[in-house]
Amino acid sequence: MKILVIGASGTVGQGIVNELSRDNQVIRVGKTRGDYKVDLTSEESVRTLFAQTGNVDAVISATGGVHFGPLSEMTSEQFNSGLQDKLLGQVRLVLIGKEFVNPGGSFTLTTGILAQQPIRTGVNATAVNTALEGFVFAAANELSGLRINAVSPTVLTEALDSYGPFFPGFESAPASRVALAYRRSVDGVETGKVYRVW
Amino acid sequence: MKILVIGASGTVGQGIVNELSRDNQVIRVGKTRGDYKVDLTSEESVRTLFAQTGNVDAVISATGGVHFGPLSEMTSEQFNSGLQDKLLGQVRLVLIGKEFVNPGGSFTLTTGILAQQPIRTGVNATAVNTALEGFVFAAANELSGLRINAVSPTVLTEALDSYGPFFPGFESAPASRVALAYRRSVDGVETGKVYRVW
Ligand SMILES: NC(=O)c1ccc[n+]([C@@H]2O[C@H](COP(=O)([O-])OP(=O)(O)OC[C@H]3O[C@@H](n4cnc5c(N)ncnc54)[C@H](OP(=O)(O)O)[C@@H]3O)[C@@H](O)[C@H]2O)c1
Ligand SMILES: NC(=O)c1ccc[n+]([C@@H]2O[C@H](COP(=O)([O-])OP(=O)(O)OC[C@H]3O[C@@H](n4cnc5c(N)ncnc54)[C@H](OP(=O)(O)O)[C@@H]3O)[C@@H](O)[C@H]2O)c1
Repeated sequence: MKILVIGASGTVGQGIVNELSRDNQVIRVGKTRGDYKVDLTSEESVRTLFAQTGNVDAVISATGGVHFGPLSEMTSEQFNSGLQDKLLGQVRLVLIGKEFVNPGGSFTLTTGILAQQPIRTGVNATAVNTALEGFVFAAANELSGLRINAVSPTVLTEALDSYGPFFPGFESAPASRVALAYRRSVDGVETGKVYRVW
Repeated sequence: MKILVIGASGTVGQGIVNELSRDNQVIRVGKTRGDYKVDLTSEESVRTLFAQTGNVDAVISATGGVHFGPLSEMTSEQFNSGLQDKLLGQVRLVLIGKEFVNPGGSFTLTTGILAQQPIRTGVNATAVNTALEGFVFAAANELSGLRINAVSPTVLTEALDSYGPFFPGFESAPASRVALAYRRSVDGVETGKVYRVW
């Protein structure tokens, strides 16, 4: 399969590339690095990406920033930054990319454990992740001939140095284990699912 | 109690006003009609509203537009319109309004059945409603001294003339029954809950 991985250079993305490149043609995409570059917050940039890659069999997104900070100080603008980046960025990838995925192909987006397990400063992340799960759930009914799923990782073992203090008592998962959920989405039969790795 | 109802003139809002004005001081707010006017998509307008009303004991929002249309034709801009209106509008009401709610007071936002029960053309509504439910769930942990819940109505009996065809086989609920869930949120003890009327 020809598989596009957006966020290929990231903590989650590297695990996905390691897992899937063993038996697939993986195209690595990032904002600043990779076989191609894209900025998911830009309509034009996403269009350009698919014009360059041509049709693919699967699109995986492992990217997206949200705002972390206490609710007491949060502004609407900060809340909106996560909506525009992690949420609308991944939705845009689907809205534009669906014309470039071969019949029987799939999208796999990335949410996260904060959808159901809130942490201090994580209100924006929870809202963005639940929205993505809602999007996947509903879009699955209207993406004729294509599948769409999401993977929801817990904090990655490889990210504990930076994110550990925000996840007190949470069990981490190594990128190699999280990557299996993306494999399951791409090679599996289901649609509209969230694969939780936690 | 002094209760602010945003969207008081709407199908849902009228039911809320009827229910709660029996034993509370209800302040009716709308975009074009009411004791006060507000546009939840505008930061300045929301600030002006609370400067006018002063402190209140409860804030209820029964408003918010989303984009309805088939996923095959949906643009990122259309998807974003629901994020900016029903989602960020209600979030903004909380982020600004929390300084004007008396200790022990509450917010009650409005989601909808489409969060868990998708309909054709409803992808944006599902994503927006799930995001709001995530927001309420997470914000409840950080709104010290205040409560926050959401009400998720099925299609209203009073709205069947306009929305009925989009909800084939769905059971409707009259506004008077839906209003009980807002009463439960305002007068109850819980926080971080979604009261489903379906
Ligand atoms: N790390 C964790 O523990 C964890 C846990 C649960 C969920 N997640 C979720 O997993 C996703 C990836 O997280 P991560 O920790 O792997 O991130 P990361 O290490 O910071 O990597 C981010 C990746 O996304 C790319 N990127 C950044 N902005 C982009 C944009 N606007 N358009 C396209 N690509 C962009 C980066 O490209 P360049 O390198 O070229 O700049 C990089 O490849 C996020 O949604 C995150 O919330 C992460
Ligand atoms: N109706 C249903 O069957 C149903 C079912 C489930 C969920 N819901 C949800 O319930 C909420 C209300 O729906 P509805 O059918 O009652 O709506 P509606 O009848 O169209 O009434 C909308 C209300 O919101 C006000 N409003 C509109 N735009 C606003 C803005 N930018 N800022 C502040 N107020 C604004 C309007 O004020 P003016 O009158 O002054 O313009 C009006 O009071 C929506 O979130 C909807 O998704 C409705």
